[in-house]
Amino acid sequence: MVKKYSDKHEILYYECDTTETLTLPMLLNIVINTSGAQSDLLNQGTDLVSERGLGWIILHYDISIHRMPVKGEVITCTTAAHSYNSFFCYRNFWVHDASGKECIEMMATFALINLETRKVARIQEDIIKPYECDKVKAIRRNAPILPVTNPKVSEYKVRFLDIDGNRHVNNSKYFEWMLDVLGSDFLTEHRPKNIQISFEKEVEYGNVINSEWNVEYGEKTTSFHRIQVGDTISAEANIVWERA
Amino acid sequence: MVKKYSDKHEILYYECDTTETLTLPMLLNIVINTSGAQSDLLNQGTDLVSERGLGWIILHYDISIHRMPVKGEVITCTTAAHSYNSFFCYRNFWVHDASGKECIEMMATFALINLETRKVARIQEDIIKPYECDKVKAIRRNAPILPVTNPKVSEYKVRFLDIDGNRHVNNSKYFEWMLDVLGSDFLTEHRPKNIQISFEKEVEYGNVINSEWNVEYGEKTTSFHRIQVGDTISAEANIVWERA
Repeated sequence: MVKKYSDKHEILYYECDTTETLTLPMLLNIVINTSGAQSDLLNQGTDLVSERGLGWIILHYDISIHRMPVKGEVITCTTAAHSYNSFFCYRNFWVHDASGKECIEMMATFALINLETRKVARIQEDIIKPYECDKVKAIRRNAPILPVTNPKVSEYKVRFLDIDGNRHVNNSKYFEWMLDVLGSDFLTEHRPKNIQISFEKEVEYGNVINSEWNVEYGEKTTSFHRIQVGDTISAEANIVWERA
Repeated sequence: MVKKYSDKHEILYYECDTTETLTLPMLLNIVINTSGAQSDLLNQGTDLVSERGLGWIILHYDISIHRMPVKGEVITCTTAAHSYNSFFCYRNFWVHDASGKECIEMMATFALINLETRKVARIQEDIIKPYECDKVKAIRRNAPILPVTNPKVSEYKVRFLDIDGNRHVNNSKYFEWMLDVLGSDFLTEHRPKNIQISFEKEVEYGNVINSEWNVEYGEKTTSFHRIQVGDTISAEANIVWERA
């Protein structure tokens, strides 16, 4: 039985877009705040992990959005470490509204990295033990992310305030760069339903990133995204949209 | 006697910079959330004002920071409308820490605008009455903002997520553009003590803004800022810094 942890969060106006709906970047921030709170509660917070020269990073999110919460709603965020193997830890998130209805479900793949070399480190048993999740042999196969073809490109510069207390660019910022290129008309006429995003290489303060994208319209309108610094791919995503 | 309103807010990691200290843009968001909550409580929320074709805008902030709160602190934000005249409403904000010590004091100048013409409208007595503040004749003289001389310039593009539920660029974004130009070294070695900022002309989605700045080092190290679109000044600020 995995150990679940929940907290409540009121959606504030500055976490919303022009339609007063929670933004995707803020959704990531809010759920990561919940997993951080669980780690603190289990005395497995950032400090303990960083004392060993390690840090948690996120490699992949699989996000299903039934309904994105809006300004003023009090949501309940729940998280649980699902399972782990030698190098990866799988964590689930659920967002429920005040009536108990599920709004969002997320699966995340975490890894530990050596903070000096920035290379993936083996999961240490005593770090993962308090979360009470199962050790598994299998490496989870996330849904494949289809590459963007014939991309359009916009440049963004990594800003000082894009960097968070972990001294790296906050994962939510990749979504800002991916979404912004789609433009106001698209973003107010569509809402995201399913998202697959993988983080492949960290971008750094001062980097100029290329946000490459394309949209295929149809029954399942899908946007394809790639964040690139020079020739290096940093992140890729597919987002399935529905009409707002 | 003016009507004060307070609420509590926990500083979350995504409201902080790399030093785990609350950012200036997020400070603005948090206090504006408090004044919005007071307006809702007094049934003078955005909806009521917008039904009359009006909206509140902020023209000026005078901010004194004794200590910027850090991640995990629960702060108390207090606000009160101080006084008003025919065109302006003056509002105070205070941020206190859990021990009751004042961390931040702010004075803001608000005005009502006609949402169609974007011109300043006369303050309507019945909108302001519930806040129970005094009508005054005098127009407050804010401390003058000294212009930036020999500025350096960086360009920023206004993004979709810079626009909030009021359908205009969130005031906090001006601070993002002003701060980012100062660079990581300056921003980690200094902290803001006093800020004067005035908002002169709204920038719009898709605008490319010039963030012009200069720093004078000395006993009172001061940065001078101007946000400009083409030849039009949007915002100006002076920030007095101390060594971190």
